[in-house]
Amino acid sequence: MNYPTLENIQNALMLISPYVHRTPVITSELLNQLFECHLFFKCENMQKAGAFKYRGATHAVLCLTDAEKLKGVATHSSGNHAAALSKAASLRGIPAYIVMPKNAPKVKIEAVRAYGGIITFCEPSLQARESELQKVIEKTGAILVHPYDNFNVVCGQGTACLEIAEQMEVPDIVMAPVGGGGLLSGTAISAKNIWPNIRVIGAEPFNASDAIQSFKNKKLIPVQNPNTIADGLRTSLSPFTYSIILNFVDDILPCSETAIVDAMALIFQYLKVVVEPSSAVPLSIIIENKDYFKDKKVAIILSGGNVDLADLPF
Amino acid sequence: MNYPTLENIQNALMLISPYVHRTPVITSELLNQLFECHLFFKCENMQKAGAFKYRGATHAVLCLTDAEKLKGVATHSSGNHAAALSKAASLRGIPAYIVMPKNAPKVKIEAVRAYGGIITFCEPSLQARESELQKVIEKTGAILVHPYDNFNVVCGQGTACLEIAEQMEVPDIVMAPVGGGGLLSGTAISAKNIWPNIRVIGAEPFNASDAIQSFKNKKLIPVQNPNTIADGLRTSLSPFTYSIILNFVDDILPCSETAIVDAMALIFQYLKVVVEPSSAVPLSIIIENKDYFKDKKVAIILSGGNVDLADLPF
Repeated sequence: MNYPTLENIQNALMLISPYVHRTPVITSELLNQLFECHLFFKCENMQKAGAFKYRGATHAVLCLTDAEKLKGVATHSSGNHAAALSKAASLRGIPAYIVMPKNAPKVKIEAVRAYGGIITFCEPSLQARESELQKVIEKTGAILVHPYDNFNVVCGQGTACLEIAEQMEVPDIVMAPVGGGGLLSGTAISAKNIWPNIRVIGAEPFNASDAIQSFKNKKLIPVQNPNTIADGLRTSLSPFTYSIILNFVDDILPCSETAIVDAMALIFQYLKVVVEPSSAVPLSIIIENKDYFKDKKVAIILSGGNVDLADLPF
Repeated sequence: MNYPTLENIQNALMLISPYVHRTPVITSELLNQLFECHLFFKCENMQKAGAFKYRGATHAVLCLTDAEKLKGVATHSSGNHAAALSKAASLRGIPAYIVMPKNAPKVKIEAVRAYGGIITFCEPSLQARESELQKVIEKTGAILVHPYDNFNVVCGQGTACLEIAEQMEVPDIVMAPVGGGGLLSGTAISAKNIWPNIRVIGAEPFNASDAIQSFKNKKLIPVQNPNTIADGLRTSLSPFTYSIILNFVDDILPCSETAIVDAMALIFQYLKVVVEPSSAVPLSIIIENKDYFKDKKVAIILSGGNVDLADLPF
């Protein structure tokens, strides 16, 4: 399989830099005291369209040839990639056709509409998403920009870690949440190339632990309708991200739903930033595995901030 | 009266830099579209101890001589200066005696305790605060670090604007909320010295508009128990901050309580940061005076993020 290289990701960063936020890396002495380690949070919740997804979507759209972009782009997504692709498509003045599960958070559906995405709703299963998307593509002739099973998208997601390298001292561990695996794949390739001694860890809700199962059994095992508050992580790995993760990631750890809510509250309270539940999953892992991280410098990607503020779980 | 100079504020920044966060300046295309202007938000809500107050308190504590610091420091504050001074005092290993109104938000009382401040509660009036503080000082011999009627504190508060100058293009307007006037005073001195054509505007809740009344009538007019959700802005100007504001500020504008809540929700939703109501007052002014700000580049200081997350007003 043809994996992105560090050079591919560096080129992606050059290409998307004029269009994306260089998000801050923030720290909290109180959180560091609480967990006896040094935590550095990369605020992709403050990225345009509210999530790291805008990096990958923008890169994919900018890589389209003039011929390819004629009919627009299409994807399925539980929300953040949908909003990101809609906004990225508007950069080049082309339509974005979006298939969304009907149980996607309202705030994410509204964001897609605000950026001009054209929505088709479907049942909340991977099969339903994919078959509905196939129909949309047949009808419109749009180019598929898959949320993570896509070379250019993974290159874009890897750019957040390149920025981290310029924004903090050398970390011991880099941690990112894993849903479909796009962020974790891109991050792992960047991190392993930049810091030879880095440990790359995926963070996954126990209730949606297809990546953990796939990683342990060395076999791609999809998940069916997982029940987790981390709505961005309900998807399964693709063959592409699975293969990258198997080669570049050191471990994937699970966390409980309670820990996700606790971590989310800690992030709001101590970091003063708004995050969606998926963003809180890496800190949840630290809550439940304090010894593992003791005295370590840990870079954590806060993946997104698109949460319904009228319905916070804490 | 002896006002801080730009050089005083530059020296303050050099002194406090190792101890304070250089907070990010963030933007939102959607907010800019909504208000048809260019807004740049300096995130002092992400400052240590959760507010700009840590700049002034740290500067004041670092300026104490060894003899002065022996008996510790004391102040009265509705919360953020209290937490900031407690934390700053702990930097030098000295006690901080804090007089707080008994209706101060719980989250702010807890923060003072977390940083080791020694609290005495009083009635929520300026007189009660001052007389209680006098008693504490007589008993302990601590040095008063007033939240804003203090030269070194105002120098510290002015440092946020120095950072803004390095973080964005030249603004047309700089806006800060005004309670006791420390942030607005320091900001105005910095801004007027850095950008000759800048307009400096104070933002104040209509329900606590002592600064507006004082500014218009050219006479210091204190406010009594004002009823505003912006708990950080319930204090009155001091002779020191009043005099600076009269000389360096172009205008002070009022806003409604409804606009404060609306602005707070917009900041959470679009900027993905946690702010307390006082931070939302400048954006409230823009909501209610859209034409005034049309097409302008506006730097806004988000003053603090210490809000009770279980009791958000939106």
